Amino acid sequence: MTQPQRPSIYFNVHLVSDSTGETLNAIQRAACAQFENVQPLEHNYYLVRSERQLERVMKEIEAAPGVVWYTISDGALRGRLEAFCRERSIPTLPVLDPSIAMLSRHLGVAPNNRVAGQHALDEDYFERMEAINFTLAHDDGQNVESLIGADVILLGVSRTSKTPTCVYLANRKVRAGNIPLVPGVPLPDFMEKMGDKGPLVVGLKISAERLVQIRRQRLISLNQDEITEYADEEAVRDEITQANRLFQRNGWKTIDVSRRSVEETAAGILNMLHERWGHS
Amino acid sequence: MTQPQRPSIYFNVHLVSDSTGETLNAIQRAACAQFENVQPLEHNYYLVRSERQLERVMKEIEAAPGVVWYTISDGALRGRLEAFCRERSIPTLPVLDPSIAMLSRHLGVAPNNRVAGQHALDEDYFERMEAINFTLAHDDGQNVESLIGADVILLGVSRTSKTPTCVYLANRKVRAGNIPLVPGVPLPDFMEKMGDKGPLVVGLKISAERLVQIRRQRLISLNQDEITEYADEEAVRDEITQANRLFQRNGWKTIDVSRRSVEETAAGILNMLHERWGHS
Repeated sequence: MTQPQRPSIYFNVHLVSDSTGETLNAIQRAACAQFENVQPLEHNYYLVRSERQLERVMKEIEAAPGVVWYTISDGALRGRLEAFCRERSIPTLPVLDPSIAMLSRHLGVAPNNRVAGQHALDEDYFERMEAINFTLAHDDGQNVESLIGADVILLGVSRTSKTPTCVYLANRKVRAGNIPLVPGVPLPDFMEKMGDKGPLVVGLKISAERLVQIRRQRLISLNQDEITEYADEEAVRDEITQANRLFQRNGWKTIDVSRRSVEETAAGILNMLHERWGHS
Repeated sequence: MTQPQRPSIYFNVHLVSDSTGETLNAIQRAACAQFENVQPLEHNYYLVRSERQLERVMKEIEAAPGVVWYTISDGALRGRLEAFCRERSIPTLPVLDPSIAMLSRHLGVAPNNRVAGQHALDEDYFERMEAINFTLAHDDGQNVESLIGADVILLGVSRTSKTPTCVYLANRKVRAGNIPLVPGVPLPDFMEKMGDKGPLVVGLKISAERLVQIRRQRLISLNQDEITEYADEEAVRDEITQANRLFQRNGWKTIDVSRRSVEETAAGILNMLHERWGHS
């Protein structure tokens, strides 16, 4: 960075949830990213479900005033928090209210104000847990014999973020597996035979420049300063060419991860899956 | 279930994001959980950043009218989507607008309307990826020699959801490891010696009834119908007593997971971590 950065504006954000705080975290990250040079100081309070817990939260809000975003269903607790903040001119936002109000109008049904209903131990929950377990069991070419049960199989040479992408997909309820492409090591037999009926196969592509950069950083972090084939530019170029040919030969979809975050790669794969499943 | 369920109301929800759709997914799950007997039919569109992509989305909205929730920063695309839906009386909600407006007022700064700013490949991003990699490398007692670098270490007997809880924590940027408690197998040496300076240690407790139930289901799913010590009520009770004594002897915090979802267990652990780090 050659340009001097303007000093950051620091401010307190209190995220108060009667559930796990996922919604608040997503909103906080997305909303704060809309401002330059601001540094939110996050205060998180999860599973706030009693007057006593709320009192503790309010003490902390008073000690570090800022904005208060919350998801609390219980009417009495909401009222208490709102009144407390109003008296102190602290701005509050019940972030789910507009969505719930719209649904209520659209469906003609009143909300039930149930706490953390989305974390019921229901079918959806067990499907999500199953996706995580499946994904961890099928990381990095493990248990290939049951990999056919995946929703998606990622292929890529070393350091193309296969593992974190799979973990991210698992959190979105996708059974994801991955197989590393290692020069000289053939793919499991079934991969090139299963055709369109098997799992979605996605090849992760990357530019040689970017991959060399990532691998050299990796070697440095492992205190290995010798440049092996692993990070040699020509060898890497060869490795990538072979991988790309494999993807093309099989007509597999690809995503270029050179300049993409893992979350964006995963979102691209989710788009492919939705398209495949015939609805988006 | 003895009570007959009322038939569900099915309705279409279109989630349109110029980013990865995380915020929309969290809001959709939390908001829909506020209504009984409703079944959202989700239509997801991620990374929608061009007129052409938006046209495809609008075609699908027209084919399956419902509610449209979106996070789109680009003014022209927003205007196009809003006008399209207004003409067809389809309700829309730009879910981030209230949060962004509040921040803008609070900070006295205008938003930059940058697309997917939260997915910049910045320090925060690499910390999150590092948390995922660390967590996968330290699942199930692997690599104990570097486990001391964790933020949190979970302990628990088999089938207390240690692994999915760790994965969930990793997604919240926590370096989490876990060690299974197996009767007759001692903990790694450092665990009972490190005191308060090491990682937060949390013991996962569970009732014997619940654990027997989970393990028997597990055996059935593995097609093993013989009841071994693993699922024998008395043996399980012993195993749990030993685990609880270990937690108590070391003064380790515990969470009872008998009736909790993994997300709620993780939220409880996040609360403990925030408290430990001296700010919430």
